[in-house]
Amino acid sequence: MDDPVLLTGAAGRVGRAILGDLGGEYEWRLLDREPPTEEPDHEYVVADITDEEAVREAMENVGAVVHLAGDPRPEAPWDSVLANNIDGTHTVLAAAVEAGVEKFVFASSNHAVGAYEFGRDPHIYRTESEFRLDGTELPRPKNVYGVSKAAGETLGRYFHDVYDLSVVCVRIGNLTKGHPPVDYERGQAMWLSYRDCAHLFDCCLRADYDFEIVYGISDNDRKYYSIERAREVLGYDPQDNSAEHD
Amino acid sequence: MDDPVLLTGAAGRVGRAILGDLGGEYEWRLLDREPPTEEPDHEYVVADITDEEAVREAMENVGAVVHLAGDPRPEAPWDSVLANNIDGTHTVLAAAVEAGVEKFVFASSNHAVGAYEFGRDPHIYRTESEFRLDGTELPRPKNVYGVSKAAGETLGRYFHDVYDLSVVCVRIGNLTKGHPPVDYERGQAMWLSYRDCAHLFDCCLRADYDFEIVYGISDNDRKYYSIERAREVLGYDPQDNSAEHD
Repeated sequence: MDDPVLLTGAAGRVGRAILGDLGGEYEWRLLDREPPTEEPDHEYVVADITDEEAVREAMENVGAVVHLAGDPRPEAPWDSVLANNIDGTHTVLAAAVEAGVEKFVFASSNHAVGAYEFGRDPHIYRTESEFRLDGTELPRPKNVYGVSKAAGETLGRYFHDVYDLSVVCVRIGNLTKGHPPVDYERGQAMWLSYRDCAHLFDCCLRADYDFEIVYGISDNDRKYYSIERAREVLGYDPQDNSAEHD
Repeated sequence: MDDPVLLTGAAGRVGRAILGDLGGEYEWRLLDREPPTEEPDHEYVVADITDEEAVREAMENVGAVVHLAGDPRPEAPWDSVLANNIDGTHTVLAAAVEAGVEKFVFASSNHAVGAYEFGRDPHIYRTESEFRLDGTELPRPKNVYGVSKAAGETLGRYFHDVYDLSVVCVRIGNLTKGHPPVDYERGQAMWLSYRDCAHLFDCCLRADYDFEIVYGISDNDRKYYSIERAREVLGYDPQDNSAEHD
């Protein structure tokens, strides 16, 4: 990827995990609605993704997009996820297609499928459980934030099918720097370490694919998301496991 | 169903097909943003579903909702389907839950899965093809109208899982009064006759279910949508077949 990679929502947690390990690997164009808190190491565009004109400008010469921007709160109200996550993702996808972008990596979320846990909690969080979601199942959000992420995936599918954009949707688990507490079973099952996160998005920028939905978690002993598809299609090779404490 | 049934988008084509056969079967409360063109046989509320307050008022004492309202154009632009179909469906679902409604029938569309036809057209429209969609597959819209219908289904799933509303999404085929032309293969595969349409929505109002996605077509010789789930769960028993011309 020689052309710039546009990273929307760059100032958020996932953006920081990505830039922490991959800052020198790509020519980044960062976009966030918040101005940088210190002198940025990369080109930095202060813009809101709901501003079509600004997004179109930021897309110039871009080869790939990592789209993280949106309201990240699981408890976000409908009006906010409608504007920022659903309409915002449409704006970024449409601008990407218009600009001839080749690859689009969309930060989806475990919240797109949160209601699969209903009635299966806590046993699916345990090592002995063989229950797995693999990305082929229909969404089952337990909040409207999850509804908005599922809608973003469907938008990605549409822009792939009709405009031939390569799209991968990463249903990100629980991204935390340190290991989740031993007694937090769900957190252990969903854990994504910072280095596995950066590696996974690196894979998304390097691999070839049409349209994919993959889960973004570390190789935890406890898990109810399959990472097989990410391994096969993207070459994801996670190094961390919530069960292995130092 | 002794309580009134709210029929949104009542003045549209699907509404007319339903009322034509079921006008006397339920206590209907019709809602449409267009005023009636002649003296209506039922209570009639002129309101836009994007008006939360009006929708909340129309929901009073309602036992079930048949939600047809929205921009019906496959070529509708994003801004319209975002407001009318996605946000509008959220407004109607939220008001239904708030009012204690038991059943919610959502008019989804074949456009939620239109891109499955890419590369399979026209052979999947033929009698000898065994390719079937059955409602468990992920959406693949070929237009943003279809994206909006898929989003409506996910909203239905969310309001079922979290608020225990019974929701059935009907992916309606091609509803036409007469038989589709013999040389229109896709139309023959997708045909839904007026009387099968009315019967299917009647089944949706009478049956018991949690959350379902079913296809709404007649029992056509040509078909690439399965109607097995509608038969099993809803008792759908279509009488028409696009291959049987008078």
